[in-house]
Amino acid sequence: MRKMRRKGLASMAVQTAETATNTTNPAVDLGPAAALSCRECGHKVPLGPVFACEECFGPLEIAYDFSAYDADELRKRIEAGPANIWRYAPLLPVPADVATKPNINPGWTKLVQADNLARELGVTGGLYVKDDSGNPTHSFKDRVVAQALEAARAFGFTTLSCSSTGNLAGAVGAAAARAGFRSCVFIPHDLEQGKVVMAAVYGGELVGIEGNYDDVNRFCSELIGDPAGEGWGFVNVNLRPYYAEGSKTLAYEICEQLGWRLPDQLVVPIASGSQLTKIDKGLKELIALGLVEDRPYKIFGAQAEGCSPVSTAYKAGHDVVRPQKPNTIAKSLAIGNPADGPYVLDIARRTGGAVEDVTDEQVVDAIKLLARTEGIFAETAGGVTVGVTKKLIENGVLDPSLTTVVLNTGDGLKTLDAVAGTGLTATIRPTLDSFREAGLV
Amino acid sequence: MRKMRRKGLASMAVQTAETATNTTNPAVDLGPAAALSCRECGHKVPLGPVFACEECFGPLEIAYDFSAYDADELRKRIEAGPANIWRYAPLLPVPADVATKPNINPGWTKLVQADNLARELGVTGGLYVKDDSGNPTHSFKDRVVAQALEAARAFGFTTLSCSSTGNLAGAVGAAAARAGFRSCVFIPHDLEQGKVVMAAVYGGELVGIEGNYDDVNRFCSELIGDPAGEGWGFVNVNLRPYYAEGSKTLAYEICEQLGWRLPDQLVVPIASGSQLTKIDKGLKELIALGLVEDRPYKIFGAQAEGCSPVSTAYKAGHDVVRPQKPNTIAKSLAIGNPADGPYVLDIARRTGGAVEDVTDEQVVDAIKLLARTEGIFAETAGGVTVGVTKKLIENGVLDPSLTTVVLNTGDGLKTLDAVAGTGLTATIRPTLDSFREAGLV
Repeated sequence: MRKMRRKGLASMAVQTAETATNTTNPAVDLGPAAALSCRECGHKVPLGPVFACEECFGPLEIAYDFSAYDADELRKRIEAGPANIWRYAPLLPVPADVATKPNINPGWTKLVQADNLARELGVTGGLYVKDDSGNPTHSFKDRVVAQALEAARAFGFTTLSCSSTGNLAGAVGAAAARAGFRSCVFIPHDLEQGKVVMAAVYGGELVGIEGNYDDVNRFCSELIGDPAGEGWGFVNVNLRPYYAEGSKTLAYEICEQLGWRLPDQLVVPIASGSQLTKIDKGLKELIALGLVEDRPYKIFGAQAEGCSPVSTAYKAGHDVVRPQKPNTIAKSLAIGNPADGPYVLDIARRTGGAVEDVTDEQVVDAIKLLARTEGIFAETAGGVTVGVTKKLIENGVLDPSLTTVVLNTGDGLKTLDAVAGTGLTATIRPTLDSFREAGLV
Repeated sequence: MRKMRRKGLASMAVQTAETATNTTNPAVDLGPAAALSCRECGHKVPLGPVFACEECFGPLEIAYDFSAYDADELRKRIEAGPANIWRYAPLLPVPADVATKPNINPGWTKLVQADNLARELGVTGGLYVKDDSGNPTHSFKDRVVAQALEAARAFGFTTLSCSSTGNLAGAVGAAAARAGFRSCVFIPHDLEQGKVVMAAVYGGELVGIEGNYDDVNRFCSELIGDPAGEGWGFVNVNLRPYYAEGSKTLAYEICEQLGWRLPDQLVVPIASGSQLTKIDKGLKELIALGLVEDRPYKIFGAQAEGCSPVSTAYKAGHDVVRPQKPNTIAKSLAIGNPADGPYVLDIARRTGGAVEDVTDEQVVDAIKLLARTEGIFAETAGGVTVGVTKKLIENGVLDPSLTTVVLNTGDGLKTLDAVAGTGLTATIRPTLDSFREAGLV
């Protein structure tokens, strides 16, 4: 074990597994969450701020006890709940009274019936855009941070932290501000000024690290193992098992908004791959609980060509994902070594889906297509999913006669540069003659 | 009367009043909207694309027939409605089936119980922020444009248009895209690139006018009177009576979200003053309909010092508002000659409220205060209302022991420049030593 301490992630695993044994409090109330379970070997440990299995170093995830639920009662309870993710509190690692605690209450974003886009793409079976730009800080990150916050409360942490290059920093800053936590977010020191402002405005500590995003991550791992990091909840590291569960709410909302019905096909972006795997988990839970019919669905993963390790592995028929050095405008998806890549491959293959990628040019075209047809201004990640949907239809992989849901996980206002080429149709003098000359009538 | 014809707005009034007589269709279905009624002289005309009284040039507004409503039934109908403004369709100038038509479905934004901010400001009676940054294009403009769109449909218009310097352009572009309307938006040709992109991405015509905002407005007025503008609905000109009603939904939502209760005090931003007057109208309607208790409420108006014509008139005890040349970072409120200024003065005085203004520095401080305490990143207009609330409490004008609702009408991502000074707390090397040296432990 001592040898592995020098190996980044593995060293954290060991450190945190030790912590688990020492600090886990049987009195921790995280609702139906019963334990942490290793995704690889099934080994179980009590709920605590740990994220990797002490036996095999596999990722830990939440195991629930849903045995007491009756489908009809649960459906009614959810429908009577608040218009945010806490309507699903019975299915999340949070206490039952979570909705009464101060947090920014994300979720219950619009599922837009995208008839205009469907016409353009030739989809006849019903096309929907799940538009997560409607979250408080305008990305799906609010969903996951909200879970990490509850875990942080349960474990007695007082500082909320993360490494980030954008969306996550704002989500953590806002959530911490409202919940009365200190926040300390680490970013590369040379991030664009706009992104720095979006993260800094919430008043937490915002620390620039002289180095790239990998250096930031490595530093955060060291901090978790150091006394200086005591009392710190890193949402995407030592609170990751809780954090990741937030993505399940996307699956829940989509099905409820479709009238407690599974979509036939979903197109989901891939960064670390966590979101896609948790959407699959959420759908399987709804089936197991009897909240939706038990029938097949297909999950399609979407990447940008400039960071397409999972798509490349999928097309090559590999089970292993080879890391890439990202080079794409879809920066919120630019994870070259996606932790959940193998699980994504498995889900895409098992459900009859696929993984596909599009060029940056296709991303920009897709952002404009979605805006022009549905009035939704998506982040580059939304351009990736819409672009991949188009490509999959053109290639005959996605069936246009089936109900399809496409995710937009963020807001175009955060990636204005991607469409900076968009501008005025015409410039005229303030006269009717000039207006007519421009051919605008 | 003839003399007034030469005075811009008045000349449009005459032109459009004539149009009214010619084009009004008794078959127009705009739900409970019964007629247009002059706010000054009470003269009534049939529903049509007109906005000024043919008798006295006063502004026309919607007169409703609510006589068939029973309070309990109406309340239940609203509560069973969709999670957007169309839950209030029975109180708006829209057809009963409006929710089935394609539009971007704004509204039902969060009413945030702002306990942290309340503590900082010393408010003990309950403080709430109505956060309209949650709308589809992230400002309250989506509410008003949605009404104008329905009027445009009813009158057979095929192009949606407006003059704008920002928020409105995006709201019109998005609404038109989704509804399948052509859009043509006029802006000053030298607008910041970011704002141009936000408006252009929806794919409508975006025309730069060589001139300032006044030139743009003047040109739009000419276009309405010209054959080239036939079939065009200018949301904030010939559709203004319908458009303006959208602001009533803020009042409805606030009361419903408080449990069908009136707040004691509201702090509302003033640009043209239309929003404040329509919020008052909405509250009065709820009282008249028996949906809330009949008891007093106070409305406070908020301006930026650099554009404070209404505040100046209020403090001087005047009934007339003297125009100002705007010079403030709160550009979405920078209307130097607010059309509804006199009505705002009347409402503030009648309800026992007030009108106050804050400096740009106070606006920035208030944006940061709201972000730091509640995790809400507001537009400069939100900085104005929060800043004015703080000032009114300090001056003993606003009673901190009463329930108070403060409006945030837009999103901080649209006015990043205002807080551009916000940045990194520290820059460190990626080592624990460097972290400790920075005093961050």
